[in-house]
Order: sequence, then structure tokens, then C-alpha cells
Amino acid sequence: MSITMQDVIAELRGTVPPIADTADTLEGGTPETPVTGIAVAFMPTQAVIEQAVALGANLLVVHESPYYNHRPEHAAHLANDPVCQAKRDFLRQSGLAIYRHHDYCHRLQPDPIMTGLLQSLGWEAHVEAMLPTAAVLRVPAMRVSELVAYVKAKLSLPYVRLAGTPDVRCERIGVLVGYRGGGANAIPLFREHELDLIVAGEGPEWETPEYVRDAASQGSPKSLLAIGHAESEEPGMRVVAAQLRDRYSELPVHFIPGQPVFRVL
Amino acid sequence: MSITMQDVIAELRGTVPPIADTADTLEGGTPETPVTGIAVAFMPTQAVIEQAVALGANLLVVHESPYYNHRPEHAAHLANDPVCQAKRDFLRQSGLAIYRHHDYCHRLQPDPIMTGLLQSLGWEAHVEAMLPTAAVLRVPAMRVSELVAYVKAKLSLPYVRLAGTPDVRCERIGVLVGYRGGGANAIPLFREHELDLIVAGEGPEWETPEYVRDAASQGSPKSLLAIGHAESEEPGMRVVAAQLRDRYSELPVHFIPGQPVFRVL
Repeated sequence: MSITMQDVIAELRGTVPPIADTADTLEGGTPETPVTGIAVAFMPTQAVIEQAVALGANLLVVHESPYYNHRPEHAAHLANDPVCQAKRDFLRQSGLAIYRHHDYCHRLQPDPIMTGLLQSLGWEAHVEAMLPTAAVLRVPAMRVSELVAYVKAKLSLPYVRLAGTPDVRCERIGVLVGYRGGGANAIPLFREHELDLIVAGEGPEWETPEYVRDAASQGSPKSLLAIGHAESEEPGMRVVAAQLRDRYSELPVHFIPGQPVFRVL
Repeated sequence: MSITMQDVIAELRGTVPPIADTADTLEGGTPETPVTGIAVAFMPTQAVIEQAVALGANLLVVHESPYYNHRPEHAAHLANDPVCQAKRDFLRQSGLAIYRHHDYCHRLQPDPIMTGLLQSLGWEAHVEAMLPTAAVLRVPAMRVSELVAYVKAKLSLPYVRLAGTPDVRCERIGVLVGYRGGGANAIPLFREHELDLIVAGEGPEWETPEYVRDAASQGSPKSLLAIGHAESEEPGMRVVAAQLRDRYSELPVHFIPGQPVFRVL
């Protein structure tokens, strides 16, 4: 009996109750389509899609949308866009289906995106509290500059952005993946858990970065380490690939790593 | 006859019609308060506020809110926050008033934030079209890597972030200040004006940066140069300071430059 796309989607969604108006859609396949090979990636770039096709996969499981918006179906500015259209045409001709594992993924307990990042950082044993959208840790005390070097090495990052002061010690750490580096998530976390530093993907520059700068000016140093959106969530998609590899030993399951979208010059 | 805070606000707002529910508020002063000295800055950080007080100003004109949110009065996560509270207390004790010149500023024609950036870049003569939220330019053709070096030198930037390819030529350039680097502003601009490159402040990483990456993969290279939110708008606040200095020769008017909120490590 063949494994269908719906089987894989059900496996990924686990026991999460149905989410109304979810962004997690299947494009280019039907629930009944038999799966002949799976590729997993964080971001379905044109290059990643081409690699998935070359690997012989007919289902690509990703975290973000292929179309440059959290909800591209609602984004008027993407209608008739030639880059979107070329990508859509390529996908249609390729026969590759894309399933977005985002909303259900983040509702799993634990969220594999969070556990993937903590595993890659080697910080699982330091978790004090696993909250719905954040992890609170106490790591061995070290200088912020040492923690930055540690994070860069563990995640193989070419660069990170630090707001705050590198020359103070830190041990109470918050971890927020993806776009959760904004003030609404990060500022209460600093306050409620007396954090020294938050590791996050990204967020608006005038919110949390300015908050930590002012906290330091007021004599209470805090730091925000922005490691990049993809860089914070890709380790979790590796965990998702491992889950599918364990579950479907009869199918090829490939993980396609991304490249940094920005270079610092 | 003394110059009041209301006089300065009216001067800044020019002939822009009233904006309902504006973020442009006066904190810590009344419209009738006489102005004894003005300081102008992009971001009212704790350090900038302390400098304004030390300079003897009683009115600080800024572009962003002091409280880590575009509309802090609507942000539940900032209620009872100790960093906000300490800043508010410091402001109250200092007697410094803060006026936010944001919504009205961007509605001026031309928007001084845009003209300030174009002036600092030495690009005023290259403007082909000045749109409500963007400028479209044709600059002398050069490689993207040369344009990056030029922008960094002109704006004295320690680093920029580039999505796209540095080794192609570019001449059709879009300029978007502040947070307008997101897809809703930048993607149609690329399309409608056949741009090679957009210079922007900041925006979500999965929108415009991924769009330009895919365009390059599809054989149509484009680039996004993210110079930083403050870095894109502070030159405009220098223009605002110059406007006030010209208008009120009887008052001291100081410009307080900011420091980059992130360092790259």
C-alpha cells in the first residue's frame, strides 16, 4: 500500500487539533497522490526546488511559503508578479508538490523548531522552562562575547548581530525562533524571567534592540543576539526530516540545507 | 514673544492636512510651553535624552517612539515595564518634552526623510520619479559591489547586508526608507520600475531578500541592500534639524547623532 501525501501530512501534524485558516497548505499535489520521495528544507527557494526535483522527490516539506509572504494568497502585490509566476510554472511542470509545515509545526508540544535549535546549540540540558513560544535556560555563566562565539560555532554562522554589551557575563538566556524577536514576545520574556540575553531569529530594529540598548544605559545590561530567521528555524526542519526518515524507511528522505540570504559587506 | 511647542509643531507639520489617530504626539510638555532649546535625533534612546538634557534643550524632536513600539500606548506588553518606567520617570524629572515627527513628516512633499537620504547619498540629480513612498533613480552604471562601497562610504556605515549578487552591473535603483523594505513596498517597485537594486532600511527576511535571491536563480539578477532602519532615516532628521535652525535663529538647535543599535560579530 502506497504512502500518500495525506499520510505524510497527518504524520507531521500529529495530534494537533485542526487550525482554522491555516497557512499550512499543499500545492501541486492532492491528498491521495502517492509519495515517491521526500525532500525537506526551511525555505523553498528556486534553487532548493530545483535540487528537490533533481533528487527525485515528489513532495517538498518546507517551513515558509515559496512566494515571499506569510500568506501570499492574500497579498495583492504578488498578483501577476513575474518571479512568482515563473516559480509557479516551474513547480507545475516539475510535478513536485510543496507542503508547508508551519502553523501545525509550531503547535506541536514540543515544537520541533525549538527543540531543533536547542539540540544544535547543545543546550537541551539547560532548559528551565519550555513555554509555548519560547525557551528559558540557565547556561554556565560566560561573557556575552563568549556566548556569541559559541552560538556562531555551533550553528556554523558566518555572522550574527548583537544589540547590547559583549563584555558582561550572562547565564539566564531566552530562545525565540523565527520572527519572534519583536518586542511583543521578547520584552515580557526579559522581564518575567530576568533574562540577561535573548537569542532570536529576527524582529524590527526599533523594538527589542532599542530596549536592550536602553536597559544597558540604565545600568541593567541585557543583550539581543539576532542570528537570522532561517538560521534559527532550519535546525528544526532537520529534526522534521529525521522524523520522516524514521517513520518512512521505505522512502528516500533528503534534507536540503539553505544558504544565508544576506551577506554582510 | 516666545516660541511655543505648538509653534514648532506647526512649523514641522507644514501644510499637511490633519491625520486622524496619528502617532505624532507631544509628551512632557503642553502646546503653550515656551521652547528654550531644541534637540533633534532619529531615536530617543536613554543616552540621546540625557544628551538633550545636558545640552539645555527643553524640546526633543525625534522620528521614533521612546518606548520600543510604533504605538506604545496600544501595546499591552509595555505596561509596567521597568525600562519604560525608568525612562518615563527620567523624562518627567528632566522637564524635557519629546515631540514625535513621524506621520506628518512622511506626508510632507517631498518627505524630508527621503530627501535627506538622497542628499547624503549624493543622488538627488539621479532621481527619475519621486513616488509617495519611494524614489526611483538611474545612477551611473556600476557593479553592485561598487555601489555597496559607495553607499557605505557616503553614509559612514560600518556594515550593510546585501541579498542578491555583488558581481553584476546596476543602474536602475529604488530607495525605500525605514521599514519599507518589506515585500508589499519593494516587490511591486522592482516590477513596475524594472529596478536592478533597492536600497532600504529593513524588512522581514523571508520577503524581499528571498524574492531577489529567486530572481537571480531565474536569470534576472536583482539585489536588496539593507542599510538599517535608523541608518536610512537619520539623514532626514538632520534635514529637519537644519530646517528648524534656519527658521528659529534665536533658539539653539542641536542635532544628536545616534550609534548603530547592532554590531556584527
